[in-house]
Amino acid sequence: MALIVQKFGGTSVGSTERIDNVAEKVAGFRRDGHDVVVVVSAMSGETNRLIELANAIQEQPTPREMDVLVSTGEQVTTALLSMALHKRGIDAKSYNGSQVRILTDDAHTKARIRSIDDARIHADLNAGRVVVVAGFQGTDEHGNITTLGRGGSDTTAVALAAALKADECQIYTDVDGVYTTDPRIVDGARRLEKITFEEMLEMASMGSKVLQIRAVEFAGKYSVPLRVLSSFEAGPGTLITMEDELDVEAPTIAGIAFNRDEAKLTVLGVPDTPGVAYQILGPIGEANIEVDVILQNIGEEGKTDFTFTVGRGDLPRASAILERTVEELGAAELRVDPKIAKVSVVGVGMRSHAGVASIMFKALAEVGVNIQMISTSEIKISVIIEEKFLELAVRTLHSAFELDADPELAGYANA
Amino acid sequence: MALIVQKFGGTSVGSTERIDNVAEKVAGFRRDGHDVVVVVSAMSGETNRLIELANAIQEQPTPREMDVLVSTGEQVTTALLSMALHKRGIDAKSYNGSQVRILTDDAHTKARIRSIDDARIHADLNAGRVVVVAGFQGTDEHGNITTLGRGGSDTTAVALAAALKADECQIYTDVDGVYTTDPRIVDGARRLEKITFEEMLEMASMGSKVLQIRAVEFAGKYSVPLRVLSSFEAGPGTLITMEDELDVEAPTIAGIAFNRDEAKLTVLGVPDTPGVAYQILGPIGEANIEVDVILQNIGEEGKTDFTFTVGRGDLPRASAILERTVEELGAAELRVDPKIAKVSVVGVGMRSHAGVASIMFKALAEVGVNIQMISTSEIKISVIIEEKFLELAVRTLHSAFELDADPELAGYANA
Repeated sequence: MALIVQKFGGTSVGSTERIDNVAEKVAGFRRDGHDVVVVVSAMSGETNRLIELANAIQEQPTPREMDVLVSTGEQVTTALLSMALHKRGIDAKSYNGSQVRILTDDAHTKARIRSIDDARIHADLNAGRVVVVAGFQGTDEHGNITTLGRGGSDTTAVALAAALKADECQIYTDVDGVYTTDPRIVDGARRLEKITFEEMLEMASMGSKVLQIRAVEFAGKYSVPLRVLSSFEAGPGTLITMEDELDVEAPTIAGIAFNRDEAKLTVLGVPDTPGVAYQILGPIGEANIEVDVILQNIGEEGKTDFTFTVGRGDLPRASAILERTVEELGAAELRVDPKIAKVSVVGVGMRSHAGVASIMFKALAEVGVNIQMISTSEIKISVIIEEKFLELAVRTLHSAFELDADPELAGYANA
Repeated sequence: MALIVQKFGGTSVGSTERIDNVAEKVAGFRRDGHDVVVVVSAMSGETNRLIELANAIQEQPTPREMDVLVSTGEQVTTALLSMALHKRGIDAKSYNGSQVRILTDDAHTKARIRSIDDARIHADLNAGRVVVVAGFQGTDEHGNITTLGRGGSDTTAVALAAALKADECQIYTDVDGVYTTDPRIVDGARRLEKITFEEMLEMASMGSKVLQIRAVEFAGKYSVPLRVLSSFEAGPGTLITMEDELDVEAPTIAGIAFNRDEAKLTVLGVPDTPGVAYQILGPIGEANIEVDVILQNIGEEGKTDFTFTVGRGDLPRASAILERTVEELGAAELRVDPKIAKVSVVGVGMRSHAGVASIMFKALAEVGVNIQMISTSEIKISVIIEEKFLELAVRTLHSAFELDADPELAGYANA
């Protein structure tokens, strides 16, 4: 007899048959006596179809009108899912973002939620209805339609769960949970029963695209228990929760994350004077290019080498900017390398366990993987390596931290 | 410097290219200094696509959810047209029915407009913006999305024109105006410059599907000057207006309307007792079958023949009901005839001109068309004839009332 918010993404509602399957799943929860609020995305392909229409008309479509346009996609799904529930004898009612009302700021196409009016939803739940809400959208204070940006349906679900004080927010996807690493690279990758919000953030930002980062942050901030599970198979999925709820005996490392999506830029022979880092990175930041790992080597004769990584898509812009900087600084040379990868070990347990870094570096050295850069945080150690070594490094670390061992030994997944 | 409401139907906005053409037309009016409110339908095919999705899920889709579903079609068009206007440097803003707000009753899928809040629209017009409104939809007092039924976009346009006290409501279609009769039947059919609301109602109900009947009634009730014109060609179209604005010297007849969509039922040998009409038509009315022309012949020996027409699609149901009635009344026989047609001469001028009926009957007699039934109103005379004579009758009457003559002679069209 819990209050559950369930979110189904575009693939899960990609056809009328799949919407019927979702209705069957939701109906099961309702029949078990739970109060259910369902958040849905647009049917897969629909948002792209609408964007193509807009692009056929205007090269850079007006953001306000773009929101009016694409928000129809989720509205269609809410109506169809409500019909599919009615067919099963389940009372249900659809709401779009304006109707709920989900109040956002007025930053069209990337709005942020300010507040949610839960009165209507509670009234419907009390009347025994399933409430079906359009994800990804809201309204500003003037009644203009806004959207939260791609993947915003996850955020809608978490925000609704927080506003309604739901017992759990369930995110249904096409995978059955969060894994110790990508199963396509490591056969022995295992689904985690639990993971902390912080770990999930590190895993998500490294390319495990199970959940939107903003949704995880939001869930962490408001302590909304979040569960990732499969739309297509039964199973408990992975619960994302607060650290203190985890077993103190939990192992050190939650998983191995990685990212092929970065590129490395090195400015060689920079005069080693104060403010040089700002002179190099300032113009990059002004161009809205995000910088990830940064390394400044000590060079010879008052010269230094300055290296950093950016998203691979930003490489052409970043190097164009740096060409100018090299000239201005009288530096020797710019070198770019898109063939790199980032591999990280992630786990809140490393806070209290020394030696994670040494296990990591030793394991990589033993298989001949050269580490180019290192970056650390409280719960993560990342290394930049040559891209061709990525799979080898991930498999090696997965074994080194006993993640792919017998669950009895690894422990963490069943903690 | 007028305030104009323009409505573009599904065919006119059926592709991004066509939406661009509509924007070009609207931009022209705006550049000429007019205030413009545009009402749009869903892109042609879109409403049917949505209905098919609903039917794939639920045999009889829930009306409330049907409205949530199909109302997205018009919303998409408002966004795309606004973008197309922005591209041309015209400031524009889209609104759906809830945003305007167009308040309706709660009769989902066939709601009626109760009131329109014109504050937001006037504010935008004053700021120099074109306002683009989704046709066909509104909201009930609880914020539920409603729709006005098929063709409801015409009604939205007329209601907005009335609420805004617009100088003219222009309905853009794929024909360039209202004709004296169907040009596919009579080569000499001519576009009318003007027609009265009452005449238009008679023409429309006879199958000239240029305008929704409800929209014409609404326009007449609120004295909104209505103009029908082509989306694809330039031209003045046809102005639908109040009678007293027309030239008193206008000719008698506006046009010849017709309808192949009726069928005739005759109950022969009915006992001629009081209440027999009710006994025959009562069960037909209870089955929601609309009856058009009714004729009761005087028969022999206290018996009478009772004839009436219904929509051809209702014939099977109507005859099944009458089979039982024939038995109950002890009537002699039921005869059905789907091969009939109705031809009408329509014109407010016939009120003050005697002899319209005699010209009509004489002209038909001269070409050997037998009249089966006659029905008259203040501004219309209709005859039921054998279907095979339809084209002959329409051409004959079109000539008899000098509608296809040299415009100099016919006069009406240029009145």
